[in-house]
Amino acid sequence: MALNAQQKSVIQKTLPSERVFFDFSDRSEYTKDATEMIFPPDALFMAETEEELVQAVRLCRQIELPLIIRGAGTGYSGGALAVQGGLLVSIENIDEIKIDTRTKTAVVGPGAITGDIMKAAEKENLFYPPDPASFKESCIGGNLAENAGGLRCKKYGVTKDYVLACRGIDAEGKIIEIDHSSPFGLLDLMIGSEGTLFVFSEITLRLLDLPRPGNTIQAVFDDTVDAASVVAEVTAAGIVPCIMEFMDGDAIACSNRYDPDHRIEEGAAMLLFETDGAAADNETAAIKAVCEKYAATALRLADDSETRENLWQTRRNLSKAVKSAYKSKISEDVCVPPSRLPQLVAYVSRLAKKLPIRVNCYGHAGDGNLHVNFLGQIGDKKENQAITEGVERLFDKTLALEGTLTGEHGIGITKKDYMGREFSPSTMRCMHRLKKCLDPENLVNPGKIFP
Amino acid sequence: MALNAQQKSVIQKTLPSERVFFDFSDRSEYTKDATEMIFPPDALFMAETEEELVQAVRLCRQIELPLIIRGAGTGYSGGALAVQGGLLVSIENIDEIKIDTRTKTAVVGPGAITGDIMKAAEKENLFYPPDPASFKESCIGGNLAENAGGLRCKKYGVTKDYVLACRGIDAEGKIIEIDHSSPFGLLDLMIGSEGTLFVFSEITLRLLDLPRPGNTIQAVFDDTVDAASVVAEVTAAGIVPCIMEFMDGDAIACSNRYDPDHRIEEGAAMLLFETDGAAADNETAAIKAVCEKYAATALRLADDSETRENLWQTRRNLSKAVKSAYKSKISEDVCVPPSRLPQLVAYVSRLAKKLPIRVNCYGHAGDGNLHVNFLGQIGDKKENQAITEGVERLFDKTLALEGTLTGEHGIGITKKDYMGREFSPSTMRCMHRLKKCLDPENLVNPGKIFP
Repeated sequence: MALNAQQKSVIQKTLPSERVFFDFSDRSEYTKDATEMIFPPDALFMAETEEELVQAVRLCRQIELPLIIRGAGTGYSGGALAVQGGLLVSIENIDEIKIDTRTKTAVVGPGAITGDIMKAAEKENLFYPPDPASFKESCIGGNLAENAGGLRCKKYGVTKDYVLACRGIDAEGKIIEIDHSSPFGLLDLMIGSEGTLFVFSEITLRLLDLPRPGNTIQAVFDDTVDAASVVAEVTAAGIVPCIMEFMDGDAIACSNRYDPDHRIEEGAAMLLFETDGAAADNETAAIKAVCEKYAATALRLADDSETRENLWQTRRNLSKAVKSAYKSKISEDVCVPPSRLPQLVAYVSRLAKKLPIRVNCYGHAGDGNLHVNFLGQIGDKKENQAITEGVERLFDKTLALEGTLTGEHGIGITKKDYMGREFSPSTMRCMHRLKKCLDPENLVNPGKIFP
Repeated sequence: MALNAQQKSVIQKTLPSERVFFDFSDRSEYTKDATEMIFPPDALFMAETEEELVQAVRLCRQIELPLIIRGAGTGYSGGALAVQGGLLVSIENIDEIKIDTRTKTAVVGPGAITGDIMKAAEKENLFYPPDPASFKESCIGGNLAENAGGLRCKKYGVTKDYVLACRGIDAEGKIIEIDHSSPFGLLDLMIGSEGTLFVFSEITLRLLDLPRPGNTIQAVFDDTVDAASVVAEVTAAGIVPCIMEFMDGDAIACSNRYDPDHRIEEGAAMLLFETDGAAADNETAAIKAVCEKYAATALRLADDSETRENLWQTRRNLSKAVKSAYKSKISEDVCVPPSRLPQLVAYVSRLAKKLPIRVNCYGHAGDGNLHVNFLGQIGDKKENQAITEGVERLFDKTLALEGTLTGEHGIGITKKDYMGREFSPSTMRCMHRLKKCLDPENLVNPGKIFP
């Protein structure tokens, strides 16, 4: 879909020309996101103010052009891809961060980097908990659009648990202000709508007092079942570590190849815990005891920030490590009730043996959110087929275990064809009606979510 | 609005006649709720199954009659009142409760009594935390419709935090199944929509492990400022009691008149705490120490269930006690950021001195939710005027303190005229669009929420 001359001319006349681009040879990052798929938009606009976002929405209405908002492009479901062409509006420069210590809130632009918000809060002894693995790069606006979770979400909740209010622009180009007291769950409608209903222009976040730091505990197991038993036993004991991550043996191997300086002991599975708050020391001791009971090897305890950061770095780089080991990966983030996680992990390892590609997994053990990676050459027809088959089987198993197809990455384009498996026709119909009601011209992020 | 002959005949033909009533002389409870306002419906249907709810919705569409769902009628905002006549459908007999200990969930009918759900869960060592003061009578369906909070909500959250899924009937009479993973915040749209969008037919609730019981602490203060300081200091110390209730001096007096057997020491303010969980004993000791620092009188500690129940009974009966003392009351449940609560309480006591009626207050100190009662004779013109003036001033002050007009009771008919003060025209417009999209004929609970 190329722009016609009139559309191009209206864009050039309406938006500040020095921040509008039609050529992507030097800007290929704006044609993709973490899915590795490539969709060049018709035009790119680097917005700097809310007023410019309003202009962009109105402009797209006027010339009937799709509008796609892009944060940092770290999403795994294609939410920021211009799949039908259109005007891609980057919000990365709308990134102001204002911390209010009196109300313990942060008022931020949608382009503010999640990690920068955390740092700004920490300076005031405050805490923004949601930490998707990409938090050092991801934008808060994208976190809201996908309702991102993160490593700490079992204890501290997900993005929407910290959004007090937001300003945005509706599909008619009108500013709308919503807060947590707005009826009809309007705030929850905006958060997690994957850019298909609204454009965020300003976000007010709730902050917590910075908890007392605790310890990081790394434990490797020779048997995945032992690791799963540790998770079950820690949970049953009422211990809530702020993080409890799982990584399978193949993921460990990928990490070691990618980052040999921070080598993890090889094994069938690794667990990585972090404790915090008043009960941290007791919880650390209790977790250590459970790990020992299940014959953990390479049990490491870190209580200084450098050692801790090293241990976490391996987990945060894991997505890149797996990708670099296998050149390309299809990553799915399914989620099952935590009690069903051992069954799902066992299924993934059986699946890995059956398929002619590698399959590995890691994820947030506490809330049953598992990232399963299908690792093959996307160009290769046979491997492609195996990936598709693997994804379908994984989804079927997840639903059979009463799980959901996406824990935190969103539906976007990668999961929209599977929507009908998880959601009833009545749910789909209700969503269609809402989309049609709020964006009758299908202007905002078209081609996403709906099959 | 009387039924015409054709409408009446269709109702009689469609619904089981032994459970349809047109005369309310012996059924006056179905003409009112806790607001004391009286609105007789045109007809009452005591539904017993989901299929009958579907029939009722389709019937009302066919004969163009408003449909109102009624739980236990304990609401304070008029959500269950047939303000435009119509068919009132009671769900009180759709009250099955099934506890699943494996998944720690409860699948319940919308008419199940909240307190019965708690009891059924407790038998399995499980815990349903949301406890609106009326929980011994209120239906879970009504709790969902208003997203009820309760005494424990600071620590444990509100109703919507425990709803995993629900089935319901949309305004077209179609069954719709929604769960917490449904996109577009559909579950949050259903919960808290005050019966204006959907009819609940089955609800799946998340349960927690029953926490270790702790202690109840009652403390009376000679000065409201001291009580507020205790709340502030307990909160600042990171102590999260599962309940932290505030009651002013006039409310104490009402309670003592209503229930002299459980007399509370007279004073300017009372605080009632409850601790639970692993840290309960430490928290109890810390709370007691802070109360003593601020010269609490009549400090009582209860660690056996009978003494505890007696202390709580006074709080749970408080609404009735206030009503019985003053014959009639207008009760508003405003909510401000917890740090602003002392300012709001001080304002209410200034307001009480200015107005020619009694004003008292009590509420959930932990989350800034204050129930303010304007106590006058509703028939009396002068007192009526004072009540209206008091309510308006309270709302203005609440908004000035960055609060919200309803903490947990909903908007219904009692607050709809004030919607425009709190919500922007764009928010109101968005809500109108959603209502129109999901209930184009304004069939379900008309006359509520929207001014």
